[in-house]
Amino acid sequence: MSGSVFGRQFRMSTWGESHGKAIGVVIDGCPAGLSLSENDIQKYLDRRKPGTSRFSTQRSEADRAEILSGLFEGRTTGTPISILIKNTDQHSGDYSDLAHVYRPGHADFGYDAKFGFRDYRGGGRSSGRETAARVAAGAVAAKVLLELGIHVQAYTSSIGPITISSFDPDEIDRNRLCMPDANAAEEAVRFLESCMADQDSAGGVITCVVTGLPAGIGEPVFDKLDASLAKAILSIGAIKGIEIGDGFAAAVSRGTENNDAFCSGPEGIKKKTNHAGGILGGISDGSELVFRAAVKPTPSVSAPQQTITSSGENTTLRIKGRHDPVIVPRAVVVVECMTAAVILDAMLCGMGSRMEYLKKIWL
Amino acid sequence: MSGSVFGRQFRMSTWGESHGKAIGVVIDGCPAGLSLSENDIQKYLDRRKPGTSRFSTQRSEADRAEILSGLFEGRTTGTPISILIKNTDQHSGDYSDLAHVYRPGHADFGYDAKFGFRDYRGGGRSSGRETAARVAAGAVAAKVLLELGIHVQAYTSSIGPITISSFDPDEIDRNRLCMPDANAAEEAVRFLESCMADQDSAGGVITCVVTGLPAGIGEPVFDKLDASLAKAILSIGAIKGIEIGDGFAAAVSRGTENNDAFCSGPEGIKKKTNHAGGILGGISDGSELVFRAAVKPTPSVSAPQQTITSSGENTTLRIKGRHDPVIVPRAVVVVECMTAAVILDAMLCGMGSRMEYLKKIWL
Amino acid sequence: MSGSVFGRQFRMSTWGESHGKAIGVVIDGCPAGLSLSENDIQKYLDRRKPGTSRFSTQRSEADRAEILSGLFEGRTTGTPISILIKNTDQHSGDYSDLAHVYRPGHADFGYDAKFGFRDYRGGGRSSGRETAARVAAGAVAAKVLLELGIHVQAYTSSIGPITISSFDPDEIDRNRLCMPDANAAEEAVRFLESCMADQDSAGGVITCVVTGLPAGIGEPVFDKLDASLAKAILSIGAIKGIEIGDGFAAAVSRGTENNDAFCSGPEGIKKKTNHAGGILGGISDGSELVFRAAVKPTPSVSAPQQTITSSGENTTLRIKGRHDPVIVPRAVVVVECMTAAVILDAMLCGMGSRMEYLKKIWL
Amino acid sequence: MSGSVFGRQFRMSTWGESHGKAIGVVIDGCPAGLSLSENDIQKYLDRRKPGTSRFSTQRSEADRAEILSGLFEGRTTGTPISILIKNTDQHSGDYSDLAHVYRPGHADFGYDAKFGFRDYRGGGRSSGRETAARVAAGAVAAKVLLELGIHVQAYTSSIGPITISSFDPDEIDRNRLCMPDANAAEEAVRFLESCMADQDSAGGVITCVVTGLPAGIGEPVFDKLDASLAKAILSIGAIKGIEIGDGFAAAVSRGTENNDAFCSGPEGIKKKTNHAGGILGGISDGSELVFRAAVKPTPSVSAPQQTITSSGENTTLRIKGRHDPVIVPRAVVVVECMTAAVILDAMLCGMGSRMEYLKKIWL
Repeated sequence: MSGSVFGRQFRMSTWGESHGKAIGVVIDGCPAGLSLSENDIQKYLDRRKPGTSRFSTQRSEADRAEILSGLFEGRTTGTPISILIKNTDQHSGDYSDLAHVYRPGHADFGYDAKFGFRDYRGGGRSSGRETAARVAAGAVAAKVLLELGIHVQAYTSSIGPITISSFDPDEIDRNRLCMPDANAAEEAVRFLESCMADQDSAGGVITCVVTGLPAGIGEPVFDKLDASLAKAILSIGAIKGIEIGDGFAAAVSRGTENNDAFCSGPEGIKKKTNHAGGILGGISDGSELVFRAAVKPTPSVSAPQQTITSSGENTTLRIKGRHDPVIVPRAVVVVECMTAAVILDAMLCGMGSRMEYLKKIWL
Repeated sequence: MSGSVFGRQFRMSTWGESHGKAIGVVIDGCPAGLSLSENDIQKYLDRRKPGTSRFSTQRSEADRAEILSGLFEGRTTGTPISILIKNTDQHSGDYSDLAHVYRPGHADFGYDAKFGFRDYRGGGRSSGRETAARVAAGAVAAKVLLELGIHVQAYTSSIGPITISSFDPDEIDRNRLCMPDANAAEEAVRFLESCMADQDSAGGVITCVVTGLPAGIGEPVFDKLDASLAKAILSIGAIKGIEIGDGFAAAVSRGTENNDAFCSGPEGIKKKTNHAGGILGGISDGSELVFRAAVKPTPSVSAPQQTITSSGENTTLRIKGRHDPVIVPRAVVVVECMTAAVILDAMLCGMGSRMEYLKKIWL
Repeated sequence: MSGSVFGRQFRMSTWGESHGKAIGVVIDGCPAGLSLSENDIQKYLDRRKPGTSRFSTQRSEADRAEILSGLFEGRTTGTPISILIKNTDQHSGDYSDLAHVYRPGHADFGYDAKFGFRDYRGGGRSSGRETAARVAAGAVAAKVLLELGIHVQAYTSSIGPITISSFDPDEIDRNRLCMPDANAAEEAVRFLESCMADQDSAGGVITCVVTGLPAGIGEPVFDKLDASLAKAILSIGAIKGIEIGDGFAAAVSRGTENNDAFCSGPEGIKKKTNHAGGILGGISDGSELVFRAAVKPTPSVSAPQQTITSSGENTTLRIKGRHDPVIVPRAVVVVECMTAAVILDAMLCGMGSRMEYLKKIWL
Repeated sequence: MSGSVFGRQFRMSTWGESHGKAIGVVIDGCPAGLSLSENDIQKYLDRRKPGTSRFSTQRSEADRAEILSGLFEGRTTGTPISILIKNTDQHSGDYSDLAHVYRPGHADFGYDAKFGFRDYRGGGRSSGRETAARVAAGAVAAKVLLELGIHVQAYTSSIGPITISSFDPDEIDRNRLCMPDANAAEEAVRFLESCMADQDSAGGVITCVVTGLPAGIGEPVFDKLDASLAKAILSIGAIKGIEIGDGFAAAVSRGTENNDAFCSGPEGIKKKTNHAGGILGGISDGSELVFRAAVKPTPSVSAPQQTITSSGENTTLRIKGRHDPVIVPRAVVVVECMTAAVILDAMLCGMGSRMEYLKKIWL
């Protein structure tokens, strides 16, 4: 058990259910001396907020991050940072009709199989709401990384069949779908409207890019940087796949195409291409780190669905209320935050990789 | 650091370099009372062996598993199982020309960046040879699972552009490419011959299927079963992507298509489809667990490649000797073994998930 | 880093400083299906409360445990249990004169050396207040253990030079010093009054006894039950030593005296004596588990003390305000709770120690 | 399970039974670039060797450390170091009479209770022989520490009732009992001779001192340096207690006596006394780290003992063969090695404790 703790040196423990009093996270292992305020975290939480978009839940999730420990005079003290986010919208009654039915595509059945029963209100612990706590922790990691010149940026690269065909970084925050291509975003909006009209939902793909990452981060063998990222990203509900660099496309390319040539020039060592996505042998190679994550369509659809009750009877389920027809845009910041947490953790773990590093700190 | 230890309750520590005296693994946490012999492990190691295939290294890797501890009178004692595999073919001289050059697509550059220098003989710790130790440990996990009625089977589903179009389980062990489709295997052989003629290499995709897995395995949030699998699989060198169930295809499907309907019948609870690949919310749902992994083309190609020396000078590299034009078939058993290790670990961790389970064991 | 997480399968993450908004703990890995209420935890917190005793701080620590997650309809769900305890008495101003001085016997100097600065208000993270969070987590562990017939009981066996000479279990809760000997308790009261008159403080010894523990709990080698207990107990501030069973007395006894003879009778297997304290080779032997912990005298004394400022100047410190002349009685419940956490964790980890146990749960 | 892995960043996995083919250890997380040879390890193993002393087993344990991985051109590569020690003296037959009887003071009963059966040959995994593997790993840690100016030294401070009354560091290696007081050593020899004449055995106390340790090592709360040491030391078989600094004596002293005054002088910051043993609040304070460990008398005595068989029948046991009348001298180097491992691990974990440290390494 104890599956709600993540990381080795930068460790986060998240807690909370969709319809409990609050959710939150305890971060243990944040270096001392980082300037940090609730606002640093709030900016990330706000990016996860559904807001006014037609494609996000209307539930007024005015998530406010409250830092309860680990700060003194505006700086981290090196001791645990506890962040609390109150649940302001807990109408348990709304969900009572889901108490005895297993929603297709949701965790309901597995939780009952594992624990014998479950908190069925809004998905309980399996709700996407849990990711707000990760975002809070990742915001802290991202701030540490920024001080080291490392920047993590994720964006929506496709919604259903609509894929971006241009890249304007400023556009990412401008449209509600977090797509760096305004035309694709418009087209995706139309696609999502048709999904909603059909009482249906859509998935998509998120791309994440890390710039400024030095070479040499990650461990050989099991704790490879890409392996750790894969775990972090697939631990986000609804994500069903990850590929590093060219990923599945590499499987159909040839060695001479897929190998990235090293070359040396006035700006130092570079790779001519980056099919590897910035990781070789599990260790960063100094290029941009690039990966893509597949997000499944929102399982909560309005259309009637065949399923069973907890006592094993066949039934037809009609999920009431409004649900996001797509969760990709809200997952973008979650991907970013998990990535930041993994990279910081890897950097902390790598500080003892050479005798000379020990001497730099301890002599 | 300490990236060579895997698992929480079923824990393996692998060690060894391509051209050192030996490689091996220490397994801590194998339940006591399992019948086990060196032959159980040897069978798995033999499947990883290049053998007589034209597409595998001619190096005579007669890997022999030697169990040094943890067994008594043919059964596991519950204490660490140390398995040693001697390196019988260590011609370090063959590799001296790689001492000061970074091979494209290999870990050389990252290791130097991380550790300041590296054992360059045959890739040292980053060699695919390291996976033999994992296979030894996974063979033990697989034997435990078999006693619980759980069977893990991986196979090659594509080599370069050649994809299987039929499925005959008996065929997997019959052809050297581990493809369950004899026609596709023949076609893949011709494709690989053309790659070799071009001094080039190919990648492919491995599919893994777990049958007999009960519902309820895996943890909520970070230690989801798919997340743990993703880490395990991407920790295998050359693997660049993973998808659970429909994976990236789910990203372009709609919710009503992608959701698997539960239904109840004479054989109990079933899902009508299995787009989810047997995992919902990170917990097994009682269906077959299915995932696919993308393997990049072998980075060691005979064609000349542009690269740099460790002192930063541009150079052209010609890798001598014979290298596998594809590593997919040898990676099949590695995928199987890592999967077995992850599932057993998850089952051991899940034994305390209910008060009633504690009472079953301790009262 | 990340020193505020404890346990492997029953895992607690504590957080909070003496004068922050709150302190708390997140428990991950509590089995599902345990009846639990805030009152179960409150009972333990109240035992840690200074109350009306003359020998405890007058600060009104009306610690109220608030459970924020992990419960549904009165039972644990198997997901993280977050417990919050608000700090109601945070007069930071009282401590400003300690900002630039290192209190002897306190952690001030080490924290500055480690982190570069510290939250000096009331000891910040190093305050004894941190133990309230452990007590909350341990109360949950103790409740699980009770359902398995295991009872953990600690008491004060000495205060300064005053040692108990009789044992009445009912007396432990009756006197404020938690001594099972009313006469010794009275004598200890007089001793503490003389300490206070001298502007001085006292230490003592806590004994802890676990009954009902089955044989076979604990791991060979590093995770021995006594080793894990030792870590847990010495992680409580002010505890400077632990001995299992006869402990240091065993070092002066002979083998024939110290060995506990096994014997078999109508009630089953027993040991004639229990010099080992219920643990042999790191594994419980079915006898009572017994250990003792040494608590140093409260470092905050009113008498003037020589010390230095953070800029390295010699100075004389006079600690103002009332401080407990002894912390032993308040530490009794902390010892009990850490013990419960260690034992439950060991039991959860031990559930996979035999193939037959796996079959009991998973077949 | 998995109790044979120790450490977080400097991690050792030991394996092997008394009468198996070999024992050994895999070290993961040793920094790259350390000069290391088998001889560095052999020196420590030789100190554990019984040799010619009358008070140690005559079994010819010519333990030879063989390094199988992790070294290249005489330096550590940062990848796992596998060390193998062959068992040269495995007369399993000698122990067959112990197959069905539980030796008092040994782990036999607990192992059967936990695992259902055990390797009874010479204690199997619970044999003191297991400590040779720890010594091999600790020797590596000690060499890293030496390069950082940190020296770990343990010695025998008492054997049974004989306690040292003077301290000559050169004497420690001169006498077979590792006592820094030649007179006490002579007296202890006579005492041990009387024990042997009585078919009995003795215990003793080991003191360990660490010099050169910087202030600021260790973590707040659970991973306190003294807590981690306590776990490491109590994980050594036969050790029944530990005290840091004054330990149990602190429990009877007063605050004004026990507090160590800080003072500033020409040589920088010092403490006038060191009752705390160099650790305050779990973090090193720059003074010598000092602790003492209680070793129980050897449980294998020649005198007849009452016990039971594995089928629960009362019997009288006569342990044949020669056994050490005291294990204290052989445990001295084990204590030293575990201490080195704990301190190095704490230093590696502490490298990320400040933002400025991250910038020193990664900018």
